[in-house]
Amino acid sequence: MPDLTPDEFRTLGHLFVDAVADARAGIGRRPVRDTVEPGTVRARFDREAAEEPSPLAGFPALVEAVTGDADTRWQHPGFHAFFPANASLTSLLGDLLSGAAGAQGMLWSTSPACTEVEQAVTDQLARGLGLPEAFTHDGGGGGSIQDSASSAALVALTAALHRAAPDPGTGWRARGVTGRERVYVSPDTHSSLAKAVRVAGLGAAGLRTVACVPGTRAMDPAALRAAMRADVADGCVPVLVCATVGTTSTGASDPVGAIVEVAAEHGAWVHVDAAWAGVAALCPEHRWVLDGVAGADSFCTDAHKWLLTAFDASLLWVRDAAVLPAALSITPPYLRDAASDSGAVVDFRDWQIPLGRRFRALKLWAVLHGQGLSGLRAHLRGHIALAAELARRIRDHDGLELAGEPVLSLVCLRATAGDAATRNLLERVNADGRVLLSGTEIDGSPVVRVAFGSVATTRDDLETLWEILIARS
Amino acid sequence: MPDLTPDEFRTLGHLFVDAVADARAGIGRRPVRDTVEPGTVRARFDREAAEEPSPLAGFPALVEAVTGDADTRWQHPGFHAFFPANASLTSLLGDLLSGAAGAQGMLWSTSPACTEVEQAVTDQLARGLGLPEAFTHDGGGGGSIQDSASSAALVALTAALHRAAPDPGTGWRARGVTGRERVYVSPDTHSSLAKAVRVAGLGAAGLRTVACVPGTRAMDPAALRAAMRADVADGCVPVLVCATVGTTSTGASDPVGAIVEVAAEHGAWVHVDAAWAGVAALCPEHRWVLDGVAGADSFCTDAHKWLLTAFDASLLWVRDAAVLPAALSITPPYLRDAASDSGAVVDFRDWQIPLGRRFRALKLWAVLHGQGLSGLRAHLRGHIALAAELARRIRDHDGLELAGEPVLSLVCLRATAGDAATRNLLERVNADGRVLLSGTEIDGSPVVRVAFGSVATTRDDLETLWEILIARS
Repeated sequence: MPDLTPDEFRTLGHLFVDAVADARAGIGRRPVRDTVEPGTVRARFDREAAEEPSPLAGFPALVEAVTGDADTRWQHPGFHAFFPANASLTSLLGDLLSGAAGAQGMLWSTSPACTEVEQAVTDQLARGLGLPEAFTHDGGGGGSIQDSASSAALVALTAALHRAAPDPGTGWRARGVTGRERVYVSPDTHSSLAKAVRVAGLGAAGLRTVACVPGTRAMDPAALRAAMRADVADGCVPVLVCATVGTTSTGASDPVGAIVEVAAEHGAWVHVDAAWAGVAALCPEHRWVLDGVAGADSFCTDAHKWLLTAFDASLLWVRDAAVLPAALSITPPYLRDAASDSGAVVDFRDWQIPLGRRFRALKLWAVLHGQGLSGLRAHLRGHIALAAELARRIRDHDGLELAGEPVLSLVCLRATAGDAATRNLLERVNADGRVLLSGTEIDGSPVVRVAFGSVATTRDDLETLWEILIARS
Repeated sequence: MPDLTPDEFRTLGHLFVDAVADARAGIGRRPVRDTVEPGTVRARFDREAAEEPSPLAGFPALVEAVTGDADTRWQHPGFHAFFPANASLTSLLGDLLSGAAGAQGMLWSTSPACTEVEQAVTDQLARGLGLPEAFTHDGGGGGSIQDSASSAALVALTAALHRAAPDPGTGWRARGVTGRERVYVSPDTHSSLAKAVRVAGLGAAGLRTVACVPGTRAMDPAALRAAMRADVADGCVPVLVCATVGTTSTGASDPVGAIVEVAAEHGAWVHVDAAWAGVAALCPEHRWVLDGVAGADSFCTDAHKWLLTAFDASLLWVRDAAVLPAALSITPPYLRDAASDSGAVVDFRDWQIPLGRRFRALKLWAVLHGQGLSGLRAHLRGHIALAAELARRIRDHDGLELAGEPVLSLVCLRATAGDAATRNLLERVNADGRVLLSGTEIDGSPVVRVAFGSVATTRDDLETLWEILIARS
């Protein structure tokens, strides 16, 4: 048999599990990011794949030999760059069952288990977050697991384009975009929206960047209203507004409720991108992240960022379960199915860009099962407390300053000595090897971001970070 | 810590590995597809997620209790429906390391290991398949791992749209699609192309279905030429042709070489969708699946269908490594990166729709390592031999007939008694529970498909299938 037997897998699986456990136990002693020249890893491969099999028992050591000095360790306790990518060991257990099931959840009938667990788990999580019941499958909407917030945004945009021109004979599905559709973002909206707009065929011309309320990083509803009215006067069609809760750069949030009101004047879809921050709604004291979301059409937050669930697991909820299939369904004979035709089931292929889909709900279910909502709250609160403590220290330190109030677990800071010093600070801190931070710009000036969120990050790691920040600033 | 400790993971990981091994060892004794009413699985979940953690040791049994009577078992040896989804135990080992690494390969710098292993492994596989060196990273093109052939098609389409109108100020990226772009498919091209065309904003109007050579299921190059010329005369722009090698319905193939010649008259992109059949090029005697591909712009085949690699792992090669980033790159300040700016590295985020990406190359590498090219060929040849044997028996049997010559591991058949009998046959065979077949239509008439390809399928399973086919026909 050209695969392992179950018994061979049993033996090797134990070895691999041990390798993973050992790697996690030792990760804090390694650099967060290796320094490596481009091409180093590729050069270690033969031109041709081997003709004959090699024993898999040696594979973990081979991977270490080939890549061990050329990695960026997102699971390292000192990883505070970008946003986290919580590949918790808990979720890996669920993911192992998912891989083993090897189910294709494209149709309900191709894996009722995959489909219905996803419905149940996203419904449970919607309630845990405090989303309106309308966003649940029980309530006429529903959640789905996408690969990323980028794809979720593209899916929402297709739904918005269809809703704006639903006629089967003359609408979006029939004639495509017209070049008059407009999508509204703020200067800090994630670049995935611009990418979705490009992929959807609207071009840069279709993207309107609405100014922020002066002195803030939040979209100005008055400016949005003015932009929409001007566009309508020009013969354009406001199709979608993306309201961000927790921007990538600084953690700022747009006023979702006010945006919903403005969008309603033109029937535009409101997509809320809370990719990073949204999961904080599990904690009642942070439920402000859902302010205004009750009026939105879609809401996205990533379980794979800060909710202990290994990539990929981006959660997209919509208020109207019918609109995604209406926008995206195409049924050739080989996908025709009695259960689908009955209308009694959800076929998740029609909720996403690809056709095939993994049983991703299993890893999320494992997290809910193994941690409980209380464990998830403790996880979130731990990082938020670290951010508050770091912010307190920065306020009391002469050489550093906050670039704004911390938002949840994100702290933005700069050197008081100016832009060059801030750039130097980022470079020198990262050169230490024990922590990794990332940079961004606010109004053209550099800012250093500290995004707490790795599963392994503890109070000790804050002390390490602080020590390095002080020494290098 | 709101996650397992490495030692807890070690213990539980062994338990989960054992559960996977037991499930695989026993899968053949279960039905391929459970019969279950919609809503059954959902009804077993509480409305709210539990507040407190539960021991993960009980999770495999819980999953079995909730979903064990409501699954479609794609890894079952009697699964011959659709195309296979090879979640080999070999690849699961690699996937476990991938999950544990938890790397985000969006930029080279965010995981040099993820990026370069993907480059190396897709280069090795390109050579194993016999793709021209131009499709390798070494040769100026390159491969990437996408989630699915659907996404690969959409990526190819964005590249084609950009190449057809590259001007930064007035081209596709700036003004979007114009409504005059045309994409060419055959009646049997996979529906993912129609979906990509829709998502890209071209609408059904942008999709031209080109007739087949009479009496075949292969696109007629003369009809393609006529369609393109008529479109150009109408002021339209031929942007992309999808040539399929191994259609989903019947395994038919379009004449890629001739299509390449026609497309060249108008500078249209040729995308080759060989999602299922392409991997057969590993066997010299089946290398015809690459006929004409040397002239194409992109080539897609799925490692997750028939190449032992757990979903998702769709391989997309392009001849020009620069065109995907040119089409898809958008760089906000928080993604700016010195290595990227140097031009010395590949950032795979610009080769795909999403931003984030898993270290999927590890599971493919594990397969190459653990099976070798010789093992992969044995895997493919085993299923192809089963198809040949089944076809031989059908030819000799009065009640059944081939709907066409078998293609690789796919056999299409019907009942000699006519359409109603064919529909009944499919229903009755699947009701047995030991095998699962799927149906399609050829010229409006039902056809039963037998797609061999599950990792566990052996000669014994052919005997079982044959016994059931005879008994139910």
